[in-house]
Amino acid sequence: MALNKERRIGRHAVLLLLSDESEGELERLRQLDWIGCKGKVGSMEAHKVVAAIETAAKKNGIIQPDLYRESHALYHAIMEALHGVTRGQVQLGSVHRTVGLTFAVLRGNPYENAQEGDWIAVSLYGTIGAPVKGSEHEAIGLGVNHI
Amino acid sequence: MALNKERRIGRHAVLLLLSDESEGELERLRQLDWIGCKGKVGSMEAHKVVAAIETAAKKNGIIQPDLYRESHALYHAIMEALHGVTRGQVQLGSVHRTVGLTFAVLRGNPYENAQEGDWIAVSLYGTIGAPVKGSEHEAIGLGVNHI
Amino acid sequence: MALNKERRIGRHAVLLLLSDESEGELERLRQLDWIGCKGKVGSMEAHKVVAAIETAAKKNGIIQPDLYRESHALYHAIMEALHGVTRGQVQLGSVHRTVGLTFAVLRGNPYENAQEGDWIAVSLYGTIGAPVKGSEHEAIGLGVNHI
Amino acid sequence: MALNKERRIGRHAVLLLLSDESEGELERLRQLDWIGCKGKVGSMEAHKVVAAIETAAKKNGIIQPDLYRESHALYHAIMEALHGVTRGQVQLGSVHRTVGLTFAVLRGNPYENAQEGDWIAVSLYGTIGAPVKGSEHEAIGLGVNHI
Amino acid sequence: MALNKERRIGRHAVLLLLSDESEGELERLRQLDWIGCKGKVGSMEAHKVVAAIETAAKKNGIIQPDLYRESHALYHAIMEALHGVTRGQVQLGSVHRTVGLTFAVLRGNPYENAQEGDWIAVSLYGTIGAPVKGSEHEAIGLGVNHI
Amino acid sequence: MALNKERRIGRHAVLLLLSDESEGELERLRQLDWIGCKGKVGSMEAHKVVAAIETAAKKNGIIQPDLYRESHALYHAIMEALHGVTRGQVQLGSVHRTVGLTFAVLRGNPYENAQEGDWIAVSLYGTIGAPVKGSEHEAIGLGVNHI
Ligand SMILES: [Mg+2]
Ligand SMILES: [Mg+2]
Ligand SMILES: [Mg+2]
Ligand SMILES: [Mg+2]
Ligand SMILES: [Mg+2]
Ligand SMILES: [Mg+2]
Repeated sequence: MALNKERRIGRHAVLLLLSDESEGELERLRQLDWIGCKGKVGSMEAHKVVAAIETAAKKNGIIQPDLYRESHALYHAIMEALHGVTRGQVQLGSVHRTVGLTFAVLRGNPYENAQEGDWIAVSLYGTIGAPVKGSEHEAIGLGVNHI
Repeated sequence: MALNKERRIGRHAVLLLLSDESEGELERLRQLDWIGCKGKVGSMEAHKVVAAIETAAKKNGIIQPDLYRESHALYHAIMEALHGVTRGQVQLGSVHRTVGLTFAVLRGNPYENAQEGDWIAVSLYGTIGAPVKGSEHEAIGLGVNHI
Repeated sequence: MALNKERRIGRHAVLLLLSDESEGELERLRQLDWIGCKGKVGSMEAHKVVAAIETAAKKNGIIQPDLYRESHALYHAIMEALHGVTRGQVQLGSVHRTVGLTFAVLRGNPYENAQEGDWIAVSLYGTIGAPVKGSEHEAIGLGVNHI
Repeated sequence: MALNKERRIGRHAVLLLLSDESEGELERLRQLDWIGCKGKVGSMEAHKVVAAIETAAKKNGIIQPDLYRESHALYHAIMEALHGVTRGQVQLGSVHRTVGLTFAVLRGNPYENAQEGDWIAVSLYGTIGAPVKGSEHEAIGLGVNHI
Repeated sequence: MALNKERRIGRHAVLLLLSDESEGELERLRQLDWIGCKGKVGSMEAHKVVAAIETAAKKNGIIQPDLYRESHALYHAIMEALHGVTRGQVQLGSVHRTVGLTFAVLRGNPYENAQEGDWIAVSLYGTIGAPVKGSEHEAIGLGVNHI
Repeated sequence: MALNKERRIGRHAVLLLLSDESEGELERLRQLDWIGCKGKVGSMEAHKVVAAIETAAKKNGIIQPDLYRESHALYHAIMEALHGVTRGQVQLGSVHRTVGLTFAVLRGNPYENAQEGDWIAVSLYGTIGAPVKGSEHEAIGLGVNHI
């Protein structure tokens, strides 16, 4: 039932996020039978971050757009990742701050046991701060859910 | 006033955390005039995670143990990192879960402007889950503060 | 000082909410000397849910509109009920979700002791999810306050 | 993709909870091909509430004890239900309060589309208050998750 | 329905807290027909802060010990005041920090309208920080509730 | 390393806030080598409260506008003060409430040890409630940070 060391999906989702060479990274992940994507979003509104990730995940075939259980799994993974970025209140512009984020979404089975089925990892990395250039520091978040 | 691309302290703190070759990584960071450390802690009690990181940061000379402003900066960075790991309530055993974490602490100036002085980044990576072997998934957190 | 088994105001507020036959239910509650109402609200904005319940409670004579202590009691009961519906952050559209809710408000004394005076219960039941038909699941909330 | 009106799993989980005649109710739910259980737990420690529900769900065959994805689904449903009961901080004794709860767990597909698969609903109802007999009011919570 | 400028109960509760001459202050408040008390509590456990304030309020006749509605009003006022002190998670030792607090409780009607009846204000002031002498800064909190 | 009794910056920030004679108070604080300011803001949007305090602090030379570390220290102090005012969710209009606040910002060293350097205290006092005149009660908040 343990996590497989080579298949730590959260670690891969974060490395993919921080990699300057994502295409190769995604290719290697495909060899684990995993599927993933990477994108960018900047906003003062958390709902735009959510929507950008959902759209990318659907467009890249990571979740089935007409199965709610898959959107539900993704939504909660996104919300968990946003907790890491926002650290207390999942709010951006309403508390006078903005984000510039790179995101990655990965889908696959990180466990030894094949019956654990697919899981989804959403990783976020970027800057958060005042809506003033340079008045920002880095933030990261990861959400992991069964799908 | 912008973040220096080579000096993104949060990114370095996360890569150091995920690296299998931390000594070389820490050596390279020293060349940026940065100081850092890496350690491990597993617990069902959040306060033990806090204490382990504080102890490591003091023992490795990352913060001055007798200046409260430095402990205060570190404490809030740890708490922010814990938000990423716990995603909602900074609680472990009291909500029936446990963590096994690797942590890294880095201190240095990530900005172009030398007057921005030192900042501190605390990164956490590991597993969170039920107090049952294998019933766990990954989690990550990052806290960044001026010091 | 104990709760009277027949007068569990929260239980009644939830059963009223889920009942297909609310008029009879409200009639029976009137025989306990209680007053209540039931309504519906759908929105992506939490403040509209709050306002809809406040308006219904005033229009139905459940609280006195010109006594702040009564509005205050109701407001906190509504906020507590919203915690059950939102489960973490009292936010809807700002985290890309919407609700379709039925609400009930009940006022009366649920305790054996007449001196406990009036209490207010606000119950919420409905769906929460993405702003896409069918991409939603159920949610419930209950707030109870002295008035 | 819509919720099936007869199969609203959260509503059934709450009615089962509030019913004085649970055996008949569970029997009727079995005819929907659903599986469920009901139990009681009183504690000043949230982790004991979590453990009691997990144990009951495993003992009654509602989740497979050796599949983490099922425990994970249940855990998050329990945590969501606890938000409704605690309304702000998922804490009991640490903020000087205690609960006496009845819980129900239901598993089945509430959607029209068979591909939505199984979902799990955890409902909680009871009292919360000071650790003094009678100094308590009612609380309710519901968590719904795909499994 | 407005707040009476001379009767701002929260302001009085805070000034009483910060005053070096509380006896005179309490005497003047009695002339507004108000009743209050002041005390101290230091702890790493939030529930001990709650219990100390509840005990003082009962012993000083500020609330009626055998009416739950009064304890309920006080409890929520205490919890709200603790939010100001803890600023995010109502936790002390579990996140490796401790408090040394002075508290005040005041009861009276702060509004122009006599029908607004009694309200209760709980104010907290002191230090919060690491369980190390001097590694602490100040914190304040105020909770106001109808009673 | 202890707090200096005469230099309790949070206490001074609150007394300055509640004083009817702020000019004299600020003058006395200048003799401790401290710098401060006082202002007012009313809004249904938390980000306007944040912006008003940031603007006042910059205009009065309390923080250096072009050093991010100083804005960062101030931002977190403001957010902590807002926790005291909002007591649970840092939200105003989105949960149907509004504030009318006086704020003070003070900068100086509250510790015996000169090496502790400057700290910043943000205090907030005013009313919070429904967007209806008189339907409001008092609230207070204090945030303290190293700068
Ligand atoms: Mg999880
Ligand atoms: Mg920050
Ligand atoms: Mg209550
Ligand atoms: Mg959900
Ligand atoms: Mg209030
Ligand atoms: Mg602090």
